Amino acid sequence: MSGYSLEEAKKQLKGLAALGKSVDMTRGRPFRDQLDISLPMLDGAASLQYTYDGGDARNYGDLMGVPAARALFADIFGVSPQNVLVLDGSSLAIMYKLVATAYTFGIAGCAPWSKQGKISFLCPCPGYDRHFAICEEFGINMIPVAMDENGPDMDTVERLVRADESIKGMWCVPKYSNPTGIVYSDETVKRIAALKPAAKDFRVIWDNAYIVHSLYDDDDRLLNIFDLIMGTPNEDMVYEVGSTSKITFAGSGIAALASSAANLKDFTAHLKIALINPNKVNQVMHVSFLKDAQGVREVMKKHAALLRPKFELVDAVLEKNFANDEDVKWSKPRGGYFVSLDVRGVAGQVVAYALSAGVKFTAAGSTYPYHMDPSDSNIRIAPSVPTLDELDFAMRVLVASIKLALAEKRAREE
Amino acid sequence: MSGYSLEEAKKQLKGLAALGKSVDMTRGRPFRDQLDISLPMLDGAASLQYTYDGGDARNYGDLMGVPAARALFADIFGVSPQNVLVLDGSSLAIMYKLVATAYTFGIAGCAPWSKQGKISFLCPCPGYDRHFAICEEFGINMIPVAMDENGPDMDTVERLVRADESIKGMWCVPKYSNPTGIVYSDETVKRIAALKPAAKDFRVIWDNAYIVHSLYDDDDRLLNIFDLIMGTPNEDMVYEVGSTSKITFAGSGIAALASSAANLKDFTAHLKIALINPNKVNQVMHVSFLKDAQGVREVMKKHAALLRPKFELVDAVLEKNFANDEDVKWSKPRGGYFVSLDVRGVAGQVVAYALSAGVKFTAAGSTYPYHMDPSDSNIRIAPSVPTLDELDFAMRVLVASIKLALAEKRAREE
Repeated sequence: MSGYSLEEAKKQLKGLAALGKSVDMTRGRPFRDQLDISLPMLDGAASLQYTYDGGDARNYGDLMGVPAARALFADIFGVSPQNVLVLDGSSLAIMYKLVATAYTFGIAGCAPWSKQGKISFLCPCPGYDRHFAICEEFGINMIPVAMDENGPDMDTVERLVRADESIKGMWCVPKYSNPTGIVYSDETVKRIAALKPAAKDFRVIWDNAYIVHSLYDDDDRLLNIFDLIMGTPNEDMVYEVGSTSKITFAGSGIAALASSAANLKDFTAHLKIALINPNKVNQVMHVSFLKDAQGVREVMKKHAALLRPKFELVDAVLEKNFANDEDVKWSKPRGGYFVSLDVRGVAGQVVAYALSAGVKFTAAGSTYPYHMDPSDSNIRIAPSVPTLDELDFAMRVLVASIKLALAEKRAREE
Repeated sequence: MSGYSLEEAKKQLKGLAALGKSVDMTRGRPFRDQLDISLPMLDGAASLQYTYDGGDARNYGDLMGVPAARALFADIFGVSPQNVLVLDGSSLAIMYKLVATAYTFGIAGCAPWSKQGKISFLCPCPGYDRHFAICEEFGINMIPVAMDENGPDMDTVERLVRADESIKGMWCVPKYSNPTGIVYSDETVKRIAALKPAAKDFRVIWDNAYIVHSLYDDDDRLLNIFDLIMGTPNEDMVYEVGSTSKITFAGSGIAALASSAANLKDFTAHLKIALINPNKVNQVMHVSFLKDAQGVREVMKKHAALLRPKFELVDAVLEKNFANDEDVKWSKPRGGYFVSLDVRGVAGQVVAYALSAGVKFTAAGSTYPYHMDPSDSNIRIAPSVPTLDELDFAMRVLVASIKLALAEKRAREE
């Protein structure tokens, strides 16, 4: 383990701060050049075909979305269109509604979660802060589960889910996981599909946010969990969600839920009170532009071409500076939106130092339930947001911040 | 009161049924010629200006909507843009979220409605069935309040709201009310603005769905309730909502909430967990097309030109057949989407007879809480949906159905 000069690192950081630059890397946002990819979708939309088999996308109706949009997501997810509903904007809104419905009204014939006393969700972590925020919103207890390169620690998951009826859910980002970038192994997906939950209203929220978000031409393969559960007693156990937020326009795309017929019936029984219909004009525009899963993959290649250099820059800088440092580890994702960085014991300090030089990272701890990272290690890097020049600056700040924080830590430990 | 020949009416209805036509008049939908009015909005949208003051409508951000869309609805409602948030599609979704937020989390520092025992809403009726469905969804008791040509019976409203802390809300469609078409009088609006609710978390849901939906050039004037409450102790008492569903595309437009700063803060504290942002691309497209309240009024004139002949046909047919019948009364709305018909004691029978001849009306009773119309009188007519030819047929069926039902009733009573 190489040491760093505290004075040298301090000087570097001060020099970078003096440049007065400012870079916000808190969220996984597409950069504007990525948003331009889908601008053609917005032209000529007046001449699209909005009517279909008795329906008119410009009018009320079709709570579950237009048939063509359901078919598009069925193609992406690898399920039947009857098992898909397509709503507006973000999959986050769908996940929130799913939890809210179970909480307030109950699902699967069970009492509402709000009436079942203390209930819990399994939270593989590091994970997605907005998942955890939904649990906090509804007072759902969060049980952290460790993640490795194959996914959540399945021994723990199997044991807890089988033993405890108060465990009602598990958050999963199975492909290019947020933030670690890993893809769940076949064995992990099979073990999840074969869980024996004590609770009849236990649900796996399969947030397939990055299902088509490969950075390289040789896309990684994730087992289709519906192939494993349909026709088994676990048919109702999975809610899969996804959206076009990082395909077309972030937050202005379309989002989908795939689940069993029974689950969709449960869900739409409440959805029909809460909504007249999603924005179906936007759905027709999306289908016209994206066409099918293959069309989506073509669009995603354009995103990958813009994103790849940014991810590779992050990796190259970290590699150059910390290749031999046991206290600094990072992921080398082949897709998704994040690089997950572990700086043992100094994450909070590193984020604070970076901020002092103008670079804003997601608050340390955000990738853990209750913002509590037990080893104060994890930092989520979102390389998509800045330009390459800004990213270069941000990485220099990050490197100096890590070196300073580690030098201080080592000085204390001596 | 003129009598009708039972045999003659029966014969007429049978003859109409034999034509094998089918007309669905259950909902207040725009007709396709109205939807064509806004098609130009969908052209050239790729060249619009999506960036603004640091923001990009195509990217994440701006939970409360793009500034220009908030300004548009501020202009329509006559409030400050800071008091407006703009979300997706339908105002129904906003009203549902408002009720769900108060129910699950509580508002104004009060306990959640779900923890306050039995709570009630005042429901001026006949009213909007989807308002009542939200109350049913959350188990909120509904107290019917009579409506006349000036709005709800304010003596009753004032007395109940002041006396009973368990009354948490009141539904209002203050302009071209659904279904009666009346506009709340100045005195009614003033008395609502000056209510003295026992409950700190009592809210008036001011569903201004038809705020710009005049059928005639001389628009009716509704007092701006915010002019009356801002700066008073009732500043937080009103949620005003509206949408472009019947301006641009039904269910694919944009919808807005206007309320006090305190209420918006309460609401967005939860909304930020449930949503990343609304569809801001759609908001920019709407602002570009509609521009401001005056631009909206220009669009609405085109709608009025298409709707007016339909409303006038309904009135002419009813006038011709029932001008002197005490048991048949109907509204003569100057805006909105409905004609409210009262056929004393035979509404259910009339709707059933019409259906037997192929014309589907909203189920009798739907305009009352729990679908219970105490006098079985009210039928909601939605003239917008059919073509003029179809409407002519539907009205002939309606007339024959009324005459048959009344003839039978009178025969029973003799």
